[in-house]
Amino acid sequence: MSITLALCQTEGRFADPAGALDLLAAEARDAASAGADLLVLPELFLSGYNLGPARARALALAPESPALARAQEIARVEGIALCFGFPELVGDAVANSAALIDEAGGVRLIYRKAHLFGDLDRDMFAVRGEGFPLVAWRGLSLGVAICYDIEFPETARVMALAGADLVLVPTALMPPYHVVADALIPARAYENQVYIAYANRCGSEPGLDYIGQSSICGPDGAVLARAGATPTRLLARIDPAHLAETRRRDTLLADRRPALYGAIAS
Amino acid sequence: MSITLALCQTEGRFADPAGALDLLAAEARDAASAGADLLVLPELFLSGYNLGPARARALALAPESPALARAQEIARVEGIALCFGFPELVGDAVANSAALIDEAGGVRLIYRKAHLFGDLDRDMFAVRGEGFPLVAWRGLSLGVAICYDIEFPETARVMALAGADLVLVPTALMPPYHVVADALIPARAYENQVYIAYANRCGSEPGLDYIGQSSICGPDGAVLARAGATPTRLLARIDPAHLAETRRRDTLLADRRPALYGAIAS
Repeated sequence: MSITLALCQTEGRFADPAGALDLLAAEARDAASAGADLLVLPELFLSGYNLGPARARALALAPESPALARAQEIARVEGIALCFGFPELVGDAVANSAALIDEAGGVRLIYRKAHLFGDLDRDMFAVRGEGFPLVAWRGLSLGVAICYDIEFPETARVMALAGADLVLVPTALMPPYHVVADALIPARAYENQVYIAYANRCGSEPGLDYIGQSSICGPDGAVLARAGATPTRLLARIDPAHLAETRRRDTLLADRRPALYGAIAS
Repeated sequence: MSITLALCQTEGRFADPAGALDLLAAEARDAASAGADLLVLPELFLSGYNLGPARARALALAPESPALARAQEIARVEGIALCFGFPELVGDAVANSAALIDEAGGVRLIYRKAHLFGDLDRDMFAVRGEGFPLVAWRGLSLGVAICYDIEFPETARVMALAGADLVLVPTALMPPYHVVADALIPARAYENQVYIAYANRCGSEPGLDYIGQSSICGPDGAVLARAGATPTRLLARIDPAHLAETRRRDTLLADRRPALYGAIAS
């Protein structure tokens, strides 16, 4: 059975976790009212991105923190699954993570960004992810990647080979990387025959601008919905029948030649 | 030192090898006059594509065939390197191949398509390529992929990891695969920080239409030149300084996590 995916492109609430949680509640309510089953929001949605190491550490959340508990409560009350980024406290260090919470309020996945982006990420995050786990949810297999992760074709490929149907990508994409939003996301969806939801920030934070251009792409590479540069909610249907039909027409995974790809994993 | 790349988008000469060689001579002369150092043409340029198995076999060329010798002579006389597709006779079987001939007329590479596309390819071609070799030419490292090959992110990735600067892609892209020309080619160039020249057919052959939309993309994903749906010559500068600058700004190859990619090669 198909589900409805909502994507929230937003300026967020920089270094204002209480404001971000209020925004999450409002966005979850509106998305649920619009019929959405799952809402995906940007990278580090709960904290803001360009925080610097001290503030990232101060805003980092342990799994049992009240802020995550409130997000779980929002999901449960609105009856909508949520995926959003937050700085995760891992022992004494910080990871750039994303939570996937189901519509009953259960935390189904905490994914940690595996590919850190330049000094910006490395100054804030000492912990990085060590794999690309999938979650079974409402008949779909879901993966999560964060921003720079998806620019590596290996990320979505590993997920697709494990059976992913839908990859959720909280992101914070800046100029001049328009090619990622414009071209790379539809290409990634097509080559792996998966849906991809790429949820970017828009507007500015101190020291960084974001380009918006969030999109939801289908498994044939079609852009099902695309935002401009301003706050936007996108909606699209995620349809297992369309996945099956696309995978009957094209057989990109079956036509691979793994014996020729050794250099990629070594 | 930079070189000038020319790309010929053409309807070709279906099942007319003598006509195709005359067209090659004319295109090589015009591209050389325009200042090009290298000319790339579509998949199976010397024969046409939608031939069926008997005709593909009849038109297949052994490496020492007169048709290839004439192509070498054209390269030498015009002083331009050439890359074009042709059906290659391999023992008693046929491969979907592309030749890279330098401006002195030397055959530098015969590349065989590694990823065969559906029944169309499989009915005609029993031999497929077993790797992605590179050729050093005028200070650049060149790879060749054919059509469907480039849709597998692994193809260009293996080349990039081996040091490729420029990937030449003779192709024959049909509807409804616009996403490949529009999005996947710039994405492939960006994610691997290489130039890509994607030389498509346009117009029709008996039973098949081609979409054109050939392009030359830069290592930052910029579309340097793009054709429409009609016969077109594209020109672009391939600049080692721009490669170096792009690779200083972004470090996509260094930021990979090969230990997490095992599933891709197994």
